Amino acid sequence: MISRRGLLVGGAAAVGATLLGTLPNILPAQGSSTPTSGASEAPSRPIGEPTSAISSRSPFEQPARTPTGQVTGASFSPLQEFSGTITPTDLHFERHHSGVPIINPAQYALLVHGLVDRPTVFTLADLKRLPSATRIHFLECSGNGRTAYRSPKRELTPQLVDGLTSNAEWTGVPLTVLLTEVGVKPAATWLLAEGGDAALLSRSVPLEKAMDDALLVYAQNGEPLRPAAGYPVRLLLPGWEGNVNVKWLRRLKLIAQPNMSRDETSKYTDPLPNGTARQFSFVMDVKSIITHPAHPVRLDRHEWVQIAGIAWSGRGKITRVEVSTDRGMTWAAADLQKPVLPKAHTRFTRMWRWSGESATLLSRATDESGATQPSLGQFREKRGQGTDYHFNYMRGWVVEQDGLVVYQADA
Amino acid sequence: MISRRGLLVGGAAAVGATLLGTLPNILPAQGSSTPTSGASEAPSRPIGEPTSAISSRSPFEQPARTPTGQVTGASFSPLQEFSGTITPTDLHFERHHSGVPIINPAQYALLVHGLVDRPTVFTLADLKRLPSATRIHFLECSGNGRTAYRSPKRELTPQLVDGLTSNAEWTGVPLTVLLTEVGVKPAATWLLAEGGDAALLSRSVPLEKAMDDALLVYAQNGEPLRPAAGYPVRLLLPGWEGNVNVKWLRRLKLIAQPNMSRDETSKYTDPLPNGTARQFSFVMDVKSIITHPAHPVRLDRHEWVQIAGIAWSGRGKITRVEVSTDRGMTWAAADLQKPVLPKAHTRFTRMWRWSGESATLLSRATDESGATQPSLGQFREKRGQGTDYHFNYMRGWVVEQDGLVVYQADA
Repeated sequence: MISRRGLLVGGAAAVGATLLGTLPNILPAQGSSTPTSGASEAPSRPIGEPTSAISSRSPFEQPARTPTGQVTGASFSPLQEFSGTITPTDLHFERHHSGVPIINPAQYALLVHGLVDRPTVFTLADLKRLPSATRIHFLECSGNGRTAYRSPKRELTPQLVDGLTSNAEWTGVPLTVLLTEVGVKPAATWLLAEGGDAALLSRSVPLEKAMDDALLVYAQNGEPLRPAAGYPVRLLLPGWEGNVNVKWLRRLKLIAQPNMSRDETSKYTDPLPNGTARQFSFVMDVKSIITHPAHPVRLDRHEWVQIAGIAWSGRGKITRVEVSTDRGMTWAAADLQKPVLPKAHTRFTRMWRWSGESATLLSRATDESGATQPSLGQFREKRGQGTDYHFNYMRGWVVEQDGLVVYQADA
Repeated sequence: MISRRGLLVGGAAAVGATLLGTLPNILPAQGSSTPTSGASEAPSRPIGEPTSAISSRSPFEQPARTPTGQVTGASFSPLQEFSGTITPTDLHFERHHSGVPIINPAQYALLVHGLVDRPTVFTLADLKRLPSATRIHFLECSGNGRTAYRSPKRELTPQLVDGLTSNAEWTGVPLTVLLTEVGVKPAATWLLAEGGDAALLSRSVPLEKAMDDALLVYAQNGEPLRPAAGYPVRLLLPGWEGNVNVKWLRRLKLIAQPNMSRDETSKYTDPLPNGTARQFSFVMDVKSIITHPAHPVRLDRHEWVQIAGIAWSGRGKITRVEVSTDRGMTWAAADLQKPVLPKAHTRFTRMWRWSGESATLLSRATDESGATQPSLGQFREKRGQGTDYHFNYMRGWVVEQDGLVVYQADA
């Protein structure tokens, strides 16, 4: 174990007790207030800003998703700027197929029909009167990591490598409650979920998943869903690829076989090296990424660094994350943030003393099903260079001799 | 137990399967897009909004804290609008004594001195290089509930009764790590924490708490603290009254006895009926409030309602929340959202079928120390009418015959 004493030796400034009077001014000039040149000179401090309806970010912190402005596109969460596990609601990744519809909640309606005893239209108020459940789960686009697989570059950041995953506290109605309301006929084995966007994105979901842990979600991190997240209601299928978590949910139809909709035939099937394709590859595989240190960070001291990142699996809880600083020759267990929740981002950390020499950092997660991340070579062999989805091989970062951190797969 | 089948009988609209074509239009006209009069008429749907750097709220959802615009004041979180347990970061309650300073993180410095071996100034970068921890905890102003105690009114909402509590995922450095870095001298038994606002708010903290679960926090719900929450660094003392969780933390001084600062003598002591005062009443007592149904909701059907609310305790985990719908004559156990975390808001729910007659709803929480909420009468007898802090008696709501819900203490 690391002795905690001395982590900052040579770092933080030791001071004599008599130096209190020269503490640097931590109150800069503000807006129209009188500027102060330094606390040691200032006889008093300026009064701050008043209370507000909505608390804004510091002008020194301006996170953003990227790229933006696409109607049929994705925006990537800045993973390297995050702490803990909850993704700030307004920085949750986006992926949509025909833009974000703005839906009037008073006009919202969800039709549940097909192989049911009582076809029913539910209003938003109806859904909110039903028993609710709240759980923390990740979402991940099944294409997350595609750029890094196809066109790896030194300059990729965690945001650009894996920014199509986020984690939130979701509240909604267990789908089992709704299905009990309408009565499912014995012949029903699948469920067609259709979104209310212009693309009418639709996916088939096995009834077994619907009856397991599926939710009709209307709130995220305590507040109503935002339009980009499916306001007012989306489907949440914990651990399953993003696109089946249908947003702006408009219709659920109980059916006896998968619908073979456009979105599960021309898209979201995985081509394999032998010319066939995996279809219904719903579950997101175990995965992890170090988010610090990572590009574009430059380590500036040969000192202790907190290696930190996130790990997740669609198959349940993360049980172990190992970190290597020597390109996989040796591995050490990272600490996992408690409580470790199933199908949720799990923060891992590990203290590391950088020697000043070039080093390759890797992380490797294992989940409670026993699955672990493959190497890039193993992944490529099994899935081929043309695969489009579910890129869960180990990610790596090289710390160069001058401290600059650059992206590298586990190579 | 409640049979789930039939919760919406007479509520949601049963439809014939042939009615699919008349599903209401859930895509209203948007900005410059062509208006559509109804989905059944519209041959196609308009393309939605493009991706963005920051995901905004729906124009139909505009939550706000209240009141605002005070430099020496508080803003109350709209508890009745929240789901789950995480408080949206920009709606976390505020209370400050001289406004919100805007601090440049590059100029931030934390002095740790007094009875230590190595007085040290830590920069923000220094703190971020140290081992971190992430935990979900509530914060509550010790004066939360004062208005409802002094001037109860029918028109009080959950926001106005108890909106000075919020819950977040916090990330920072365990104070034990920092104290190990500087070396605490044996004579030190307390710690003075001083904020960098114009008020230089300062409180004394027993070393025992500092060495237990205290954190120097720099992130909230995944992102850097916002200025109103103490950016860039605040003290977090889980379960303890809000004001000792010093924001904009500037200085920690290890001392041998409490400092008896202005903020712990003229303020934040509890006057008692016998003329003495409780000093250092740090721990927030076990408490709960029903947030739905609550004022200004009007129930409009004699039907199933999901009673929902939050419970919390500074002494650890909530073990039980009971709900009464008959003014405390009978009680029923509510469901608790899992996982139940120590010193954190815990969501409770309980289905209830409103008969259409006047009813008084109460909630009563118990924590793992065995403490439970007193009645208003018990509380008043023990603490007196003039007490200023720690109002943890049971809150109640009356559902009037016309469905309007109004505030009433347990009386």
